[in-house]
Amino acid sequence: MIKTDLSLASEYLPPLGPWLERAARALDAIPSYDYTGWLHLPTRTDAALPNEIEAAAARIRADSRVLLVIGIGGSYLGARAARDLLCPALGGGGTELLFAGNGLSGQAAAELLAYLRGRDFSINVISKSGSTTEPAAAFRVFYELLREKYGDRAPERVYATTDGEKGALLGMAKERGFTRFVIPSDVGGRYSVLTPVGLLPMAAAGIDVRAMLAGARAAELEYLRKTELNPVLHYAAARQALYAGGKKVEVLGCWEPRFRFLAEWWKQLFGESEGKEGKGLFPSSLELTADLHSMGQYMQQGERLMLETMLTAASDAAPAVPYWEGDPEGLNYLAGKRLDEINRVALMATAQAHAEGGVPVLRLEMPAVTAASVGNLFYFFELSCAVSAILSGVCPFDQPGVENYKQKMFALLGKPVKK
Amino acid sequence: MIKTDLSLASEYLPPLGPWLERAARALDAIPSYDYTGWLHLPTRTDAALPNEIEAAAARIRADSRVLLVIGIGGSYLGARAARDLLCPALGGGGTELLFAGNGLSGQAAAELLAYLRGRDFSINVISKSGSTTEPAAAFRVFYELLREKYGDRAPERVYATTDGEKGALLGMAKERGFTRFVIPSDVGGRYSVLTPVGLLPMAAAGIDVRAMLAGARAAELEYLRKTELNPVLHYAAARQALYAGGKKVEVLGCWEPRFRFLAEWWKQLFGESEGKEGKGLFPSSLELTADLHSMGQYMQQGERLMLETMLTAASDAAPAVPYWEGDPEGLNYLAGKRLDEINRVALMATAQAHAEGGVPVLRLEMPAVTAASVGNLFYFFELSCAVSAILSGVCPFDQPGVENYKQKMFALLGKPVKK
Repeated sequence: MIKTDLSLASEYLPPLGPWLERAARALDAIPSYDYTGWLHLPTRTDAALPNEIEAAAARIRADSRVLLVIGIGGSYLGARAARDLLCPALGGGGTELLFAGNGLSGQAAAELLAYLRGRDFSINVISKSGSTTEPAAAFRVFYELLREKYGDRAPERVYATTDGEKGALLGMAKERGFTRFVIPSDVGGRYSVLTPVGLLPMAAAGIDVRAMLAGARAAELEYLRKTELNPVLHYAAARQALYAGGKKVEVLGCWEPRFRFLAEWWKQLFGESEGKEGKGLFPSSLELTADLHSMGQYMQQGERLMLETMLTAASDAAPAVPYWEGDPEGLNYLAGKRLDEINRVALMATAQAHAEGGVPVLRLEMPAVTAASVGNLFYFFELSCAVSAILSGVCPFDQPGVENYKQKMFALLGKPVKK
Repeated sequence: MIKTDLSLASEYLPPLGPWLERAARALDAIPSYDYTGWLHLPTRTDAALPNEIEAAAARIRADSRVLLVIGIGGSYLGARAARDLLCPALGGGGTELLFAGNGLSGQAAAELLAYLRGRDFSINVISKSGSTTEPAAAFRVFYELLREKYGDRAPERVYATTDGEKGALLGMAKERGFTRFVIPSDVGGRYSVLTPVGLLPMAAAGIDVRAMLAGARAAELEYLRKTELNPVLHYAAARQALYAGGKKVEVLGCWEPRFRFLAEWWKQLFGESEGKEGKGLFPSSLELTADLHSMGQYMQQGERLMLETMLTAASDAAPAVPYWEGDPEGLNYLAGKRLDEINRVALMATAQAHAEGGVPVLRLEMPAVTAASVGNLFYFFELSCAVSAILSGVCPFDQPGVENYKQKMFALLGKPVKK
């Protein structure tokens, strides 16, 4: 369960009652839109799915040192966020997740090719259509390496997560005999982390996807209730009230380095859902305390256009500050204190300093980082985003602006026009 | 040499002549400020310094699998940016750079401790004073591990980059016999990448620091000349003209994933220099093309408060799109094209689409990424930032806003007050 604390935004907020009422109505309105399969996904996921995912993951873990995840946008950010949050950053054993097809860098692809040449690997290619430029190009490049290494047995090492009924990737998967997983047709990319899109790579990395789904189920049951304390309504109402009051940028301040890609996932979710019709809070993020020593000056005294959402997780890891005889740098006043304790104090001091400096601070607190709490957090943000976007008067589930550059690119590349 | 192209911002820009004149005057005004030791640093760096750095780096590379760099803000972002730009992301041999003391996460510290326990390592602790909370706490934690592993020989594995005349770290270094490097007293943290702060970890990672300094020297000689084509004046004038015209956010769009921490370094440089007195462009960044599939919608149709600076490097790595019989996903029109070629076309299409959508686009093009071109780029941004901040009427070299949260934090932590 995520807890919200709006006290450090209160002087910037109007009376929240009317906003909360509007947020509750927005919550009711969600099912009237298309692409809302994510809304009841946690409670309606077929019990067989985790079995299938775990079976595939077990096979990958048995025969592959690397699972290469080929996907872009919502087809990789959720898995990458979960991996960073839940797997050790250093020296973790087991199957390594690497990501490709989320860009067009030749050097990045060349390095990956060299790295994979000497390692057993499998591919999880994730695309509804199979024809998005970046992942399609990467799939050709890395499938060739698979063929080089494993010959006719290459298809056994490909897991295609794609549409259940149509598309080029589905066709290839059937023809070549890839293992298949289905992206539900009523779930958009940025809301797909709790489908096989996110779950298969997570399971391959050793994450307990049943626990993640259980956490998301608890979230669905809790956050769809229109209670007074529903944190989804509070977060959505507060950020939209601040936006209406003139704030233009939302900074997600994450108090652990491993949240960096959760923030990237969050940016897509909110940016793509709300950024249309000339509207929307510009999503940005900070890693704290690190970025107090880079963006701290701006947050305190720059343009007053930001609200800041501080995301924290309960944590109490072991290292404490040692006592040093002679106190050479005056740090003995912290001796015996755990870093996590000091981190919490830094949070309180920073939140208060920013609020006093003209930046309203919303606080989101989650329990300790586990598969279940991360599942809960994903659902929390998905629902908050849908409510928020509806509150601001835009459709949360389309992305009408992403075609423009593609049309220009296809024209410049000479893509044949379909007749 | 960085090239600027302002053509995709022209319809949003006023006549640039007067802005360029003001920028040239700002350039002349830099030496009248304090903390401008960085301005002539490349041409004035003592010829002995690269020798000393390379000698220390050789020692580290000989006896350590890991160099743990302990520093925060300007004391790690430059080295991290250069490492990511110039060293392979995967499977590089040699001494690995890891970073600590740039936050207070207990879990991150615990993971690092476990990882280092089984590996030979040295520490490069970087701090002018030695008493900044995060690096000071981390230094105590990891120095204890060094002592555990190496006993009385631990000090031989510590490289202290600190003030030449005062401070707690200097005192410790002298007392315990650490190898010392000096941070020039007239260079602030965010302008320190071309001092031993950045150069020692870079050299340990195998980067050619002589070539980097040579690139920076070429930049100094070129960009301090007030010619019509000086890209520093163009970039600074254009961004300030756009800011004066109402743009509030600058998005640095980087067309290679390895630029992620260059963007973080850039955010500190510009955010901390310009974000004061209620002013300053809010610095943000994108990784492209990846983030076209996350923030692309917002860039195209969200609030029109951004300008976008597209940073590209010449690149022509090997992988090309293979030809596939039957063209299963319609990608054969790209067969034989290198990913880097497609990337360049995507850049052109995106820049044009964003410009048409209401986002002025500034283009910065650098040559292929080498130690020399990265040295040039660092200097280009430092000088552009100083000129920009002076243009907007603030001092580029102070950071008056960073004390507020610290005072609150020290009070909450019960830090003894100096009398």
